[in-house]
Amino acid sequence: MKLAMVNDRLVPMEQLDPVYLDRGTYFGDGVYEVLRSYNGKLFALDEHMARFAASMAAVRITGIDIGVVRERVLAAFKAGGMANAKIYFHVTRGSAPRNHTWEKDIMPNFFLTISEAPDSSKEKARGITVCTHPDLRWKRCDIKSLNLLPNILARQDAADRGCDEAILVDDAGLITEGAGSAFFAIIGGALCTAPLVANILPSITRHFIVKAAANRGMPIQEQCVTPEQAAHADELFIAVTTKDVIPVVKFDGTPISQGIPGPRVKALITEFQKFTV
Amino acid sequence: MKLAMVNDRLVPMEQLDPVYLDRGTYFGDGVYEVLRSYNGKLFALDEHMARFAASMAAVRITGIDIGVVRERVLAAFKAGGMANAKIYFHVTRGSAPRNHTWEKDIMPNFFLTISEAPDSSKEKARGITVCTHPDLRWKRCDIKSLNLLPNILARQDAADRGCDEAILVDDAGLITEGAGSAFFAIIGGALCTAPLVANILPSITRHFIVKAAANRGMPIQEQCVTPEQAAHADELFIAVTTKDVIPVVKFDGTPISQGIPGPRVKALITEFQKFTV
Repeated sequence: MKLAMVNDRLVPMEQLDPVYLDRGTYFGDGVYEVLRSYNGKLFALDEHMARFAASMAAVRITGIDIGVVRERVLAAFKAGGMANAKIYFHVTRGSAPRNHTWEKDIMPNFFLTISEAPDSSKEKARGITVCTHPDLRWKRCDIKSLNLLPNILARQDAADRGCDEAILVDDAGLITEGAGSAFFAIIGGALCTAPLVANILPSITRHFIVKAAANRGMPIQEQCVTPEQAAHADELFIAVTTKDVIPVVKFDGTPISQGIPGPRVKALITEFQKFTV
Repeated sequence: MKLAMVNDRLVPMEQLDPVYLDRGTYFGDGVYEVLRSYNGKLFALDEHMARFAASMAAVRITGIDIGVVRERVLAAFKAGGMANAKIYFHVTRGSAPRNHTWEKDIMPNFFLTISEAPDSSKEKARGITVCTHPDLRWKRCDIKSLNLLPNILARQDAADRGCDEAILVDDAGLITEGAGSAFFAIIGGALCTAPLVANILPSITRHFIVKAAANRGMPIQEQCVTPEQAAHADELFIAVTTKDVIPVVKFDGTPISQGIPGPRVKALITEFQKFTV
């Protein structure tokens, strides 16, 4: 006889809902995406689908067609009827009794939520505060996986210190990215951000910010900065799918651009908005 | 209106079973243990409970008393009625709409399964084969967390190459441990295993093996070995809670101790059995 226990309730294993045997919970064995709509139109749907397909391939999740995922996202968006929607979805490898290896015919689980996108107008107008935290993540942060324990611990630590985001610093003393965002510094008029290597998520918002900067004639330098360089930067900001460009006005306690969003970040916010109409 | 989608089924968010909002799935935000019984008696229960309490503290999961966890494990063991049981359990931080930070009053979720422990007599008699894989894990492998994607990918890669376990090698070219086991080499009569630092799980079986080796008068060297040293070792073995000592007879294709379990590993198996009666 096999038994399971859910909180204090004993259940014969064969009566257990398969959701309890999801490899997403056992191992974080799944990948996810977050996308949003602006004014009734999904933003960068193709880019999010391409990244999701790449994440699935990287962790070898098969058995669900990317076309099916796309159809479900579109169906949920239609059913939600929200002009500015935030859509989260993940695919896990599937449900099975716990075992490191998986059966070839395991069926992936799909899960999605849709809700109103957060209103980021106040954060855009006032800016946010950030603090640094050691980057403890694994070596494949280019995969958007469900292994996010270091991210949430860093973010919570930042919140406990009164900050809105944790900026991760690697063993070499370089900033990689935020716990849930891409990180940018404007130094000497140039836009600096980490190059896309295995320890960075290929941010889709970053892609559009680089375009926005090019449209404004702002030079791009794909190089990591140190916390000290960041604290002395002309301007700082983070980028996140749900809120796009958010100015950073305090970095590890040091005010940035006199503690208010600077002119170049404001220009990038305006430029980014052109992509979303 | 908030909506969720489970596979192809749309559900209003308020009707969704909270299990779908488990932070264990969203973030791998939880910790786990595996223990077993030998002949009706749970092995090293206190040690597993102490490690579990340490894991919970390390990821700041509160709201469930370790005494309650222990009672549930004992209740499940009693209900299962198996002499040689394998018990898996985890606690996740709880269920909540997805957000990196958590509310102070979030209630943890407990989940447990109990089944017959695997019969490892054949593996003990014949030995197993292993191959190396880069150690891509995060920097807090001393925490027994649900972030196990690098582990399962390494194990599956090993399985695809016809091996029973993946042996992880860090950037310095040193063996840390197995994807789901501790790793040991016997070189010049001494037992070599990685020291317990942040990139190693403090294996409870390892603790008893060190005692078993001491009982046999075998010197212990807490130092990492390279794959080359391992391939030339007198004997190799792995240690895992469910099967204790398992000889390794092939390492990256190289036969170890003529491809059969060697005398010192056999002695350690015998010595270990004394702890389990």
